[in-house]
Amino acid sequence: MATDQAQGGSVSETYEAFCQRVERISSVEDAGGVLRWDQEVVMPEEGTPARAKQLSTLSSISHELLTDDETREFLEELEAADLDDEQAAVVREIRRKYDRATSVPEELVVELSETTATAHPKWKQAKENDDFEAFAPTLEKLVDLKREYAAHIDPDADPYEVLFADYEPYLDLETAERVLERLRDELVPLIEAIDESDADLETDAFAGTFEDDDQEALARDVLDSLGYDWNRGRLDTAPHPFSTGTQFDARVTTRFEPEDLLGSITSTIHEFGHANYTLGLPDDHYGTPLGQSRDLSVHESQSRLWENHVGRSRAFWEHFLPIARERFPELDEVTPEEAYEAANQVYDDNLIRVEADELTYHLHIVIRFEIERELISGDLEVEDVPEAWNDKYEAYLGVRPETDAEGCLQDIHWSHGSFGYFPTYSLGSVLAAQLYATAETELGDLSEDVRDGEFDDLNGWLRERVHQHGKRYTTPDLIETATGEAFTADYFLEYVEEKYGELYALE
Amino acid sequence: MATDQAQGGSVSETYEAFCQRVERISSVEDAGGVLRWDQEVVMPEEGTPARAKQLSTLSSISHELLTDDETREFLEELEAADLDDEQAAVVREIRRKYDRATSVPEELVVELSETTATAHPKWKQAKENDDFEAFAPTLEKLVDLKREYAAHIDPDADPYEVLFADYEPYLDLETAERVLERLRDELVPLIEAIDESDADLETDAFAGTFEDDDQEALARDVLDSLGYDWNRGRLDTAPHPFSTGTQFDARVTTRFEPEDLLGSITSTIHEFGHANYTLGLPDDHYGTPLGQSRDLSVHESQSRLWENHVGRSRAFWEHFLPIARERFPELDEVTPEEAYEAANQVYDDNLIRVEADELTYHLHIVIRFEIERELISGDLEVEDVPEAWNDKYEAYLGVRPETDAEGCLQDIHWSHGSFGYFPTYSLGSVLAAQLYATAETELGDLSEDVRDGEFDDLNGWLRERVHQHGKRYTTPDLIETATGEAFTADYFLEYVEEKYGELYALE
Repeated sequence: MATDQAQGGSVSETYEAFCQRVERISSVEDAGGVLRWDQEVVMPEEGTPARAKQLSTLSSISHELLTDDETREFLEELEAADLDDEQAAVVREIRRKYDRATSVPEELVVELSETTATAHPKWKQAKENDDFEAFAPTLEKLVDLKREYAAHIDPDADPYEVLFADYEPYLDLETAERVLERLRDELVPLIEAIDESDADLETDAFAGTFEDDDQEALARDVLDSLGYDWNRGRLDTAPHPFSTGTQFDARVTTRFEPEDLLGSITSTIHEFGHANYTLGLPDDHYGTPLGQSRDLSVHESQSRLWENHVGRSRAFWEHFLPIARERFPELDEVTPEEAYEAANQVYDDNLIRVEADELTYHLHIVIRFEIERELISGDLEVEDVPEAWNDKYEAYLGVRPETDAEGCLQDIHWSHGSFGYFPTYSLGSVLAAQLYATAETELGDLSEDVRDGEFDDLNGWLRERVHQHGKRYTTPDLIETATGEAFTADYFLEYVEEKYGELYALE
Repeated sequence: MATDQAQGGSVSETYEAFCQRVERISSVEDAGGVLRWDQEVVMPEEGTPARAKQLSTLSSISHELLTDDETREFLEELEAADLDDEQAAVVREIRRKYDRATSVPEELVVELSETTATAHPKWKQAKENDDFEAFAPTLEKLVDLKREYAAHIDPDADPYEVLFADYEPYLDLETAERVLERLRDELVPLIEAIDESDADLETDAFAGTFEDDDQEALARDVLDSLGYDWNRGRLDTAPHPFSTGTQFDARVTTRFEPEDLLGSITSTIHEFGHANYTLGLPDDHYGTPLGQSRDLSVHESQSRLWENHVGRSRAFWEHFLPIARERFPELDEVTPEEAYEAANQVYDDNLIRVEADELTYHLHIVIRFEIERELISGDLEVEDVPEAWNDKYEAYLGVRPETDAEGCLQDIHWSHGSFGYFPTYSLGSVLAAQLYATAETELGDLSEDVRDGEFDDLNGWLRERVHQHGKRYTTPDLIETATGEAFTADYFLEYVEEKYGELYALE
């Protein structure tokens, strides 16, 4: 008994020391997050050389702290000990991070980082000049390096699966594939039916030109209305909106286009969803995995839930249109129904992912997913990407890009070497639907709350079921805990079929 | 010969590796600077717990990198080698930093940091309640800890000298003392003469209420006019204006009081001077002492040179008043002479350092200096500080504070444990005059340039003589190199006697 206690004491001391190291790593990573926010939002244009050094120093310091022998010794000692669930979760998460970080040789990490640093301006130039060939050698090199990277982590696995797991560690690729195939198989005919429908949706509800300052005031209204905690957040503009931070300070960025008021509203709601997840993480676990958000799919489920299930609902526009009219009297004649229709139009001839609606969006993702898989497996050569890309757009969306700038060069991700990232966008939407359906099963129809601008119940439910757990559960376990069942596309498909069936008067 | 070359090669490799370590430390420190800017300027109110952890982690990492055995080995090897002047300067600066950092025991560093963390709110409370006794025990503890700190660094030296050297490492305390005594001895009668003068200066030139937004626009005009490089800087507001950054990104903050337009203009010019120094540091030495500014007195010389010698000159108001009138038509009736008079009034009954004019300012510093010296030496007990303080105000300025809030509790510095900091404010002003006089000797009378809003020659001269050298020279050597003579109060005293003699029609 005395021995047990002594051992218990020593495990808890080791765990404590381990957590201090983990918190140290997190603090350095979070400092990097502040520097990146600063770079995107406020840094003067010529600040880059110093900022690049600061960021690379922080990232190499956190890498060294993580891959240090002491981390391994802590992990081995704690894995052999009797831990409670929370401790075991922390050890599981750091073990995974440690294994990934130590299996890739330093030289390859450096080469990847140097290649992506030069890839970004090359991609930008190639996109501007619609010149895929100028980017192709870089893309080829990135594909090779990423294959090599994957082989170091797990030489026996499908390399794409390894890359995907960088963004979504616990949902296996088979699940992702099954979901994406289902989306493709069910959304293609749905979008065709919409295309053929005679329904005449209101498209001009938000036509006009809207001043940046007024749009910003309205974005603040949106955040007020959803319950954003300004004591722990702020709103700024950035060329590519994002949100970042910790449970103590989770910031939103958005952007304003004079002729796209709706775009800024939905983008603000989307980023609110991300920040709101971060703000729901438990304060007292700041710095360990228990106080950090789960990976990209879960994060995206939070942004999509607010953007689509709340922000694109009829009830939301009944609530929010009067607020918007205060800022923009030109909306006085618009009805909530018209705003709802405008926010939910399906554009089957759109080529650009970031401008896509809630349905066609997923076909953009499916196309990238299919192309990425073939690229990484070697079944598709880099030089053949544009044709494969265009063929798929024609097949799934009935529209063929005329330029590569609007085609396979449109997105920045490949220039970052991010293969395997895209699927998480769709998985997030699918999970959003599953969560929202469960919330409505348990809390009752939420549309009345939304109409009243009353989001506390929904948010309380999300806090309890998702946010407060941090990384305590793996993603599949978190989904199971939150919704009572395994990850499924059923709810998403039900949701879109019902919503768009009604909107477009399909039978 | 071959051996020499081989040895040369090896020294240069060691030096290279040493610089990488030094740059690493600087990057971590500069990242901390970004986090502090963020905290003062944009961070949401409840972000503190996470930010405090991030900052203390960065500071302990840079401390560890600095005090590591490897740093000592590098230093020893390089100190024994044949180095060029620049290399020797880098080694000299890091040696100094290393010796200070390693001589203070970890526990004392922690105790000091914990004590100052709690001292700040206690000081704030005590000041609010005008209750010196509530702060006295904390002040006593800080004095004790700082004495102990000084004894670890150099047990044989005057502890105040050791503390002073934290802020001004190369100007010895004797020099500082000599300068401050001269300021006291010559400024006291000058201020008395002004007090007795019949001159009737314009005091209402900037009377009125001025909107924040317009004041901000005018602050931007000031910075434009002085040639601030917006590609490497920005202007924001902060409760206590400061400037921070690197040669790639040196930011200014200011603040606006509705009834103090002049204060925001002079404070903006002051912070411009600091940022402009930082921006003049050489790009290619970023991260080593050769790319870092000299210490507080030199920094303050740059802010005071622009604030006082430029911004409080007659020529400046001839240049700037028309610009100010564009923003504030209510200034249409004000003449440049009236603006000049308003900017240079001597308030001999003012008790508050930060509101002081160019002359009485230094008596506030002298008083603190004398009190700090006695406190640290033990000749003055903490409980006797208020009386000693008030007696000195009466003796030097002819005015006695009625409360400690307006007396010895007015400034934050002691709650930070910063003893020895204040003198650098006056030393900076004195150096500013020496530099400006040399610039005018070499470039000719600058008032025409200032009147034309033409600052390139002056700034070019400062770049060449001061900024570009970074920490290559020690402060006395830098002053000698820049001005051709040793540090002296002659120019400052000449400047104020001439300027205020004319303004107040003294004989």
